[in-house]
Amino acid sequence: MSEPPSPTAGQERLEGRVSVLAALEARQRAIEVILVSRAAKPEKVADVLAAAAKRGVPTRTVAEEDLGTQARSHGGLVAVCAPKPMTAAAELYRIVDAARTAPFVVLLEGADDARNLGYVLRTAEAFGAAAVLVRRRAWDVDGTAVSRASSGAFERLPIVLVERELEEVRQLQKRGLALLGCIPRARTSIYDADLRKPSIVAIGGEKRGLSGAVRSRCDLLVRIPTRPGPSSLSMAQAAAVAFAEVARQRAGC
Amino acid sequence: MSEPPSPTAGQERLEGRVSVLAALEARQRAIEVILVSRAAKPEKVADVLAAAAKRGVPTRTVAEEDLGTQARSHGGLVAVCAPKPMTAAAELYRIVDAARTAPFVVLLEGADDARNLGYVLRTAEAFGAAAVLVRRRAWDVDGTAVSRASSGAFERLPIVLVERELEEVRQLQKRGLALLGCIPRARTSIYDADLRKPSIVAIGGEKRGLSGAVRSRCDLLVRIPTRPGPSSLSMAQAAAVAFAEVARQRAGC
Repeated sequence: MSEPPSPTAGQERLEGRVSVLAALEARQRAIEVILVSRAAKPEKVADVLAAAAKRGVPTRTVAEEDLGTQARSHGGLVAVCAPKPMTAAAELYRIVDAARTAPFVVLLEGADDARNLGYVLRTAEAFGAAAVLVRRRAWDVDGTAVSRASSGAFERLPIVLVERELEEVRQLQKRGLALLGCIPRARTSIYDADLRKPSIVAIGGEKRGLSGAVRSRCDLLVRIPTRPGPSSLSMAQAAAVAFAEVARQRAGC
Repeated sequence: MSEPPSPTAGQERLEGRVSVLAALEARQRAIEVILVSRAAKPEKVADVLAAAAKRGVPTRTVAEEDLGTQARSHGGLVAVCAPKPMTAAAELYRIVDAARTAPFVVLLEGADDARNLGYVLRTAEAFGAAAVLVRRRAWDVDGTAVSRASSGAFERLPIVLVERELEEVRQLQKRGLALLGCIPRARTSIYDADLRKPSIVAIGGEKRGLSGAVRSRCDLLVRIPTRPGPSSLSMAQAAAVAFAEVARQRAGC
């Protein structure tokens, strides 16, 4: 029985085919080794093994119990890797400057938990966001859980941690991006905003919503119209609707 | 120190101000007693106490540890109550027949967990759904967790459990509602479907998507357009975008 590498400080363990394959293909994380359970079905791990070989990442076959995970649905695959590196501000500006269409960037102020954060990243990618800015104080999350909920989007998306001063937002505004803040009672409906222009769409945290610091920087505050009464939208659901509207307008639907 | 009532079979414990207040106001569940922690701030529980008095539901002040909950954020409030009663088919037809605008009904085939189910109910209510049909085999969930994630929408929304035969769907189709199934690779974009008409919007489960049984009944299959590549939408996020599109078209945005 081979010994699984013991996790060291700063190491993460990505679980499951989707996350592991996304990490291999996105080439953002340093991956030390991929552990494959002896019980895994060969056809379920073939594409991961091929991607690992292509990238020169070692793989090791271990007993199921030596995967070192408590997750139920890892599918016999665990990647032992470094945390995903965050994208530097300079790289963000290069991405925005090089964009062939009007850039769409997301600013996320808070997330209650890794799962909701992962869902928001997944939706941001699906609707065409070029990068996601996350307030640094909101970034206290388990990378494994974020990656799993994001269905791999976390591995692929450029993520920039921004400080309280929002210097990156200011720089993007200088580059012509408008900062649009989603809040429940804004005067303007999101359907009346022009989201085809270069935009940063800001989403607040579940409990506190958008901070005063971000609101005061916004070029426009928008609401997602909902029925009157006690109903409301959760953060990840509001984000999905807002990002979909960006994509809808840009597709000219 | 007063004894909290010991939970009996079929009893649920709703936790937190939002869920407890929604259950009181929606008047769907039988509520045995509302437990209020001695440590709760009076201004945080005043509206719950007023609603309980109005409905004649007894309240009892107990020590924090006697609330009988493991949740962190119950805010000192727990309602000991019967499970939420499901809505009968006959009542569903009455709701649809009495609707003054084109009815919008949701059909939910599966949910991985109580939290995602709660989020979908919350979104369905916010975007104007009159009722939610849930496949009975998908309804194996913790009512407390559903209610919490739904932010009270679970308490207010009529929910109908439907069997494999989908008799209720057939009856709604007879009443002029079109069944629209959301699937990732449908030929028609959801933005090209007329959702102002009486509609049932069907959302599949996270893992298996929409079943063949539901697909074969659909009047139209629609997709939510996303960027090409490996990205995808999670069930609750896809539901949010689809329901928002119903509301957008109906508002004439």
